[in-house]
This record gives sequence, structure tokens and C-alpha cells, in this order.
Amino acid sequence: MSLLVVGSTAFDTIETPSGTAKDCLGGSATYFALAARMFTAVRLVSVVGQDFPAAHRAMLEQKGIDCQGLEQKPGKTFRWHGRYSADMNARETIDVQLNTFGEFAPKVPPALRDSRFVFLANGSPRTQMAVVQQMAKPEFVVADTMDLWIDRERPALLELLQRVNGLIVNDAEVRMLTGESNLIRAGKAVLALGPSLAIVKKGEHGCFLFSPYFHYALPAYPTERVTDPTGAGDSFAGGFMGHLAGCDSVSLWNMKRAVAYGTVTASITVEGFGVDRLAAADRGTVERRYQELLQFVQS
Amino acid sequence: MSLLVVGSTAFDTIETPSGTAKDCLGGSATYFALAARMFTAVRLVSVVGQDFPAAHRAMLEQKGIDCQGLEQKPGKTFRWHGRYSADMNARETIDVQLNTFGEFAPKVPPALRDSRFVFLANGSPRTQMAVVQQMAKPEFVVADTMDLWIDRERPALLELLQRVNGLIVNDAEVRMLTGESNLIRAGKAVLALGPSLAIVKKGEHGCFLFSPYFHYALPAYPTERVTDPTGAGDSFAGGFMGHLAGCDSVSLWNMKRAVAYGTVTASITVEGFGVDRLAAADRGTVERRYQELLQFVQS
Repeated sequence: MSLLVVGSTAFDTIETPSGTAKDCLGGSATYFALAARMFTAVRLVSVVGQDFPAAHRAMLEQKGIDCQGLEQKPGKTFRWHGRYSADMNARETIDVQLNTFGEFAPKVPPALRDSRFVFLANGSPRTQMAVVQQMAKPEFVVADTMDLWIDRERPALLELLQRVNGLIVNDAEVRMLTGESNLIRAGKAVLALGPSLAIVKKGEHGCFLFSPYFHYALPAYPTERVTDPTGAGDSFAGGFMGHLAGCDSVSLWNMKRAVAYGTVTASITVEGFGVDRLAAADRGTVERRYQELLQFVQS
Repeated sequence: MSLLVVGSTAFDTIETPSGTAKDCLGGSATYFALAARMFTAVRLVSVVGQDFPAAHRAMLEQKGIDCQGLEQKPGKTFRWHGRYSADMNARETIDVQLNTFGEFAPKVPPALRDSRFVFLANGSPRTQMAVVQQMAKPEFVVADTMDLWIDRERPALLELLQRVNGLIVNDAEVRMLTGESNLIRAGKAVLALGPSLAIVKKGEHGCFLFSPYFHYALPAYPTERVTDPTGAGDSFAGGFMGHLAGCDSVSLWNMKRAVAYGTVTASITVEGFGVDRLAAADRGTVERRYQELLQFVQS
């Protein structure tokens, strides 16, 4: 079924203990779409500047991603420069140039408003809400958020949470949002804010899924070498939402499989810089890792 | 089948964000034995001083723990005083009085030397080795260790690792032992040091099991309120070894179940101060949590 993602497209300069990569194609919507396209047709809504090479758009389209919502505006593309700690569990932002993304007011093209599955990548909750309001009849809307919005835009975020079906956040974010340090309590507390689904990502420690009817824990894929963690969260969301949209079902059984597929697409992303590994992967790669993951966690 | 544990018996004073408990019965062998006795007959080898109340020994014996190896010596019982951080993920030692445990040279009573399953709780690797050498024909020997021995007694520890079947350590310890920061690589690196089983405990993030033939990951039981993490690791080892000894099998299937039982016994321990919850629990409590855990992780 139709899956829409709204988020950033960026050029990232990334420093990790494995090396440095300059001006990689990145951005939340890019990682999400490149992961999700292995499961279903994806529609990308984002913004870039005049410096965005036609070759990048062509690559995304060649991967089957619908780019009619990828606006090109006067000015430059969003740029981010970050540096990871030795154990890659922390990162600092060296430089951010929002450029065209600074005034991103996403317009969902009319032909895409019928999308039934929607992912609101990290962005201001007001912008995320504006997207929800443009959709005709979305069936399953999931949002990401970050510390900045939890801190500065809490009322707008709480309002958004009343309008979405799910929230995907990391451990630090869910603690900040709910004030609960215990992650089980924090995950349940999200459900009290509106969504019927809360996913808490814990990086190398896997993730938790909370719903009113069941809870689920899945360890991470046993990756032996992390090259660059950038985009892991959005790649997770892409695999997760891609699988759900692809089978057009949010049953318990499919939710669990979706979490495993998200875990797999994230594991592919972190093995290379930027989107390289993810863009090169195909459904065969995904299925092999999915089977390996199931063996690793099978009780 | 016969399960022997050699380790400490102590009085602990514990400060956590939940409160303070003075002079609780504790020690690695105590936690281990109280967890393992729910699965099989346990034999305890440890040392206490003249201040050890007869009521404590009676309680252990009443739980079915064979205490003929619990030596009572002139002097005082080992005392430890610790304080946990707000999130309970770190602790500092306020005071240690080794007392009778300082010269602990475990003597396994002749009647217990036929034990087929042996757990060497945290202690000097020379002491652990001395225990191995006293056993008649141990079938499955598992050791714990800590940063102190990895740092100061590495040669003796490496020698011990050639003589044991398994090692149970936490994430920080396995990184220190192997020099690998990635836990999957670290776990595999332990296997190269001798044991055919390495378990890496990650506290609230669950654990990994490594063997030459399979790897396994299990999230922690979804505990909502941690009162006191003291003894969680030894309670894990007790549930793990207790199950294996109880069914007298180290098959893949039983190993996975044993990890789940260890996870369950650890989760019971952390819900109260000291050994209170663990001593009060019975096999029914364990089985209910085991089913809950399976539901939580079932893919």
C-alpha cells in the first residue's frame, strides 16, 4: 500500500573512528525511503536546493522512489557535519546549515494525499501536524521527534501525539518526553499520551515495542563492525513502515515482523558511510539478515 | 544433577534511590544458591565468621541448600557497603571488610567432590583454579570474574579459562578482558581463550550467549521498578546453572531455556533489597515470569 515519508534531504559530513566522509547524501527522508523501497512503493516529500545533483534524484527514482514531492528551491541543500565518539554511542554536531530546509513547509502533492501509511520524520511538531492535515484519509501515521521539540515545543508535540497512531523515539527521548527513567514505564507512558504504538530504539541494545495489547522486545542484529551510525533510526523506521505498508496490515504478527525488518535495514545502514550500503542492498540482502536475526533471537 | 557453587557469603549495606538496607544477607554464593535451589539440589561452599547467625544457615538449609561446605571461622563475616547511582547503572563501594573471606581457601568437602555442575563465583582466579583441582570429574564448570582480576591476575585468569567450560561476565568486563569494544566480537573473542560458552550480561538490556555453534540474544524481563540491583548477576548465574543441572543437559535448547530462567531469577532479585524476594520466591513465581518473558520476546 501507499507509503509517504516527509522529512529532510541533506548533505552530511561525518567523522567516525572509521574515517571521514564529506558531503554524503543523507537526511531522514532519504534514509527512510531507501530502506522502505525494498518493501513497498514509497513517496518522498522533502526539499533540496539548487546544488542538489540531478544524479541523486535519478538514483532515488531509479530505486523506485516517487520523487514528485521532492521540491527543489532557490538556495542550498540542508548540510550537517557531525562527529561520533570512540564507542559511537554519542555524537556532537560540528556545523548545521539548514538552508532550504529552514523554511520547509511541506506541500503534499495532490496525487499523494491518498497515502494510507505516513511517516513524519523528525521535524517541528507544527510542520508534522500540517502534513497530517493535508492527508485525505491516512490509516496509519507514525512520527519521530527529538529532544529539541520535546523541550521547546511540548504543547504542539502533545497535540500531534493525539493525531498519530505511533511514535518512534530513542531511549533518551522517551525518558525526556515521559519523565520516566525506567524504559518499560516510559514506553507505557507514551501510550497514555495518545498513540496506540510506541517504539523505543536502544541502538546496539535493540528496541521495545509497546501497545495496549502487547509488548515486544527485539535485540539488535549482531553487527560486528559499525562504520557510521548516521541514519540508523530512519532506516529502522523505513524497514518497519515499509513492511507494514507492503503487507497492508498492522496485526500483531506483522508488527513483530516489521520491527525485525527495521532492525535489519538499520544494520545494513551502519556498515557503511551515509546511504551507500542501504542504496546497494536489495530484498535478498534483507531476507538473509532477517533469517539470521530470527535465529539469533529464537527462544 | 549435583550443582556446586563456591563464592562469598556476606553482610551488605546497600544504598539505592529506593532506600537503604543495613547488614542484609548477601554474597555471590548466597544469591546463586537461592536462585539455583528452585531448579535442583545445590551445594554451597563458602566462609563466614562467628557473627553469622544460626538463623541464616537454618534458612538456607530450609530452602534445601546443602551447607556442609559453609565454613564458620574465627573472626567476622565479609562486609560490603555500596551506593548506587540515580539510574542504578553505576555503583561505588563505600566500604569493604573482607574479614574471614580475605583468606578464603575453599575446601570442597569430600562428599561434594563428585558434583558435575560447578559455578565458580567471582574470586581470585587462583582460588577458582584450586576449586577445579579438587573436583573429581566436573562435567560443566562455569566461572565469573571481575575487573580486578582481569587487570591484576590476567595470566592466572587465562590459565583458568583453559580449564572451564563457560564464562559469565558483564559488558564492561568482557570488553576489558578481550580489548574488543563491539560486544559481538568480544563475546566471540572469549571463545578463543578456551571456554565453549561465553555469556555477556548487559543488565537492563538483557544478555548474549556465544558458543562455537550458535549465538543467542535475550532481552531482560520487563521489570518496571528496580529496588536494588545487588546480586542480579549471581542470581542470573544461579537460574542458568540451576536449570542446566536440573535437566542434566547442556543442549542448545536447554541453554536457551537456562538463559531465560537466569533472566527471570535476576528479575526477582532486583525487586527487593538483598535476597528477600529471591528467598521468598518459589518455582511457581519463576514459571509465571518465564512465560511472561517468552511472550515478551516471542518473534
